[in-house]
Amino acid sequence: MKRSLIQLLAALSCLTLLLTACGKDQATASISAQPVKTFQWKLVTSWPKNFPGLGLGPEKFAQYVNEMSAGRLTIKVYGAGELVPGFEVFDAISQGTVQMGHSGAYYWKGKMPAAPIFSAIPFGMTATEFNAWLHYGGGLALWQELYKPFGVVPMAGGNSGAQFAGWFKKEINSIDDLKGLKMRIPGLGGEVLKRAGAIPVTLTGGEIFSSLQSGAIDASEWVGPYNDLAFGFYQAADYYYSSVWHETGTNLEFIINEKALNELPKDLQKIVEVAAKAVNEDMLDEYNARNNQALQTLINQHQVQVREFPKDVLVALKGYTQEVIAEQVAADPTFAKIWQSYSEFLQSMRQYNDLTLKAYFENR
Amino acid sequence: MKRSLIQLLAALSCLTLLLTACGKDQATASISAQPVKTFQWKLVTSWPKNFPGLGLGPEKFAQYVNEMSAGRLTIKVYGAGELVPGFEVFDAISQGTVQMGHSGAYYWKGKMPAAPIFSAIPFGMTATEFNAWLHYGGGLALWQELYKPFGVVPMAGGNSGAQFAGWFKKEINSIDDLKGLKMRIPGLGGEVLKRAGAIPVTLTGGEIFSSLQSGAIDASEWVGPYNDLAFGFYQAADYYYSSVWHETGTNLEFIINEKALNELPKDLQKIVEVAAKAVNEDMLDEYNARNNQALQTLINQHQVQVREFPKDVLVALKGYTQEVIAEQVAADPTFAKIWQSYSEFLQSMRQYNDLTLKAYFENR
Repeated sequence: MKRSLIQLLAALSCLTLLLTACGKDQATASISAQPVKTFQWKLVTSWPKNFPGLGLGPEKFAQYVNEMSAGRLTIKVYGAGELVPGFEVFDAISQGTVQMGHSGAYYWKGKMPAAPIFSAIPFGMTATEFNAWLHYGGGLALWQELYKPFGVVPMAGGNSGAQFAGWFKKEINSIDDLKGLKMRIPGLGGEVLKRAGAIPVTLTGGEIFSSLQSGAIDASEWVGPYNDLAFGFYQAADYYYSSVWHETGTNLEFIINEKALNELPKDLQKIVEVAAKAVNEDMLDEYNARNNQALQTLINQHQVQVREFPKDVLVALKGYTQEVIAEQVAADPTFAKIWQSYSEFLQSMRQYNDLTLKAYFENR
Repeated sequence: MKRSLIQLLAALSCLTLLLTACGKDQATASISAQPVKTFQWKLVTSWPKNFPGLGLGPEKFAQYVNEMSAGRLTIKVYGAGELVPGFEVFDAISQGTVQMGHSGAYYWKGKMPAAPIFSAIPFGMTATEFNAWLHYGGGLALWQELYKPFGVVPMAGGNSGAQFAGWFKKEINSIDDLKGLKMRIPGLGGEVLKRAGAIPVTLTGGEIFSSLQSGAIDASEWVGPYNDLAFGFYQAADYYYSSVWHETGTNLEFIINEKALNELPKDLQKIVEVAAKAVNEDMLDEYNARNNQALQTLINQHQVQVREFPKDVLVALKGYTQEVIAEQVAADPTFAKIWQSYSEFLQSMRQYNDLTLKAYFENR
């Protein structure tokens, strides 16, 4: 009885103390009153762990989120194959095996023919044009709608900028030189090359070097000097073509399991959204700064020969691109709908940039 | 005595209860145990309140911070003149009258001759080139060092992209047409025009329209079609010159009182930093998307005549720019030090973009 009396008194007084204490800092207590719930997320990627550019983006994202949330949401990043193979990232997010991922939309074109529009379209928008379309031209809403049936929420996850045409074991002097060429190239760029008589092959980044070296493939695109130097492709192919055509400003993606995102409190949801936005520019900054530096290393230290496709090769590839897109538009109403928005914006941005950036590049 | 016994028992039991309760959620309690402190900041700007682009950037920043911090840091945004005149923003931050501001570094060139490098240099970097230099080329560290003696911390605060040459009451057919021209133009662009015989004038955005209309000035640059349409300049001048030369990718700034920033806990400091990074891209996205739309409105609804400077006018302006910069380098060791970093990076990015973006703009 004595014990229960003490407990009763204690409980009552404790309540009084709490009320008194609360009265003092009422405005702030309403924030701290709920018990703090913490969340641990796994983030799987399609890149080797800590790979320059592509792989550092999700690491920086995790760091931003951890620090902004003061540890309430911690995110652990996994390289391709550590938890989930590189090309199975989307399914893992959709099934809720892991909460989020970092990848490229064109890897999911088998599942959704329109997906490549959200990573790279041959002769498409540059990085800044794409970001403008995504965030102020209706692009993001269309992307969200595309992934919605899979319970996956997409956000822009960085941009590599304009990519080089790639590494070739022989010179390309005419469109006929592409005939029979086995080339690693994903997305619609591969479809375009097929029409030129080449044989497009899909490989993850980590598989390219050995395939080039063994002769299993004759050519490969990857990203640009910064990443290409890191993979050492100059040791496996003699000719490096700079001509921008197939990936003119490649958008990466953060993809999140919708249910996991909705389970976060509002402030953590916003932290995830804003961290992704910050990483989106950060990756482009990194690519722009490192690419030229790496190009100088490739040229001066590794005697790489940088080439440009002859004009008529680019004209032919552009023609095939129009054919490929027309077929996609005819075959898939979702592709047609998204393409209309994308191509109208591209047309408008092209006029504007011809007057501004293009004119400036010529005059400066 | 009875009362003090109860209090003693209560205190003891309360402690027990707290210890028991704490034991259960130890990991999380360490986060919530401290009383939550809230912060209210004022953010003053050099723009009219809610002005498209420039003025919406700080509004979006405040919204991000408020939501990510769940109200622990609330930021109220003020237009130019509401609390502080547009050209006194830096001093107000430095003196700690307010905690932070949003402005353009070239407004402080009287105080720091090198400041314009962090907003716009004639024939300088584009928006993406500048961001790459700032975040991966050493630019931000130099900027922080420049503002440090004033107790002010700078962060990139959005970019307007390449700006139009501006509005003119008469046609510019040769460099001689600039002689005697009274033109509103800030920063080093004004110094360059002075060498061409023009009379540069400094006015805040809100003062331009009436000055143009009254004939107090003959010409004015502002930003580009999106902002220029909003101010109705087409009603006050007949000729709109698109030629990008004086502001090739203008960087805005968030500036923060160092002491106020250091008083925030680490998580709120990171929230401020990441929100600024997210707004930095967001503003460029908005400008890119809205500028072309506004240009069409200016041309089609308001019969604005868009012109380009003759090539020899641009060549002459480029020559004067080299003179102005050489003088700044000779006069101010800080300008010289920052210019070396800027110009080396510009040179390197120019080579890279000639091979990629410039070639692509020509081929697509």
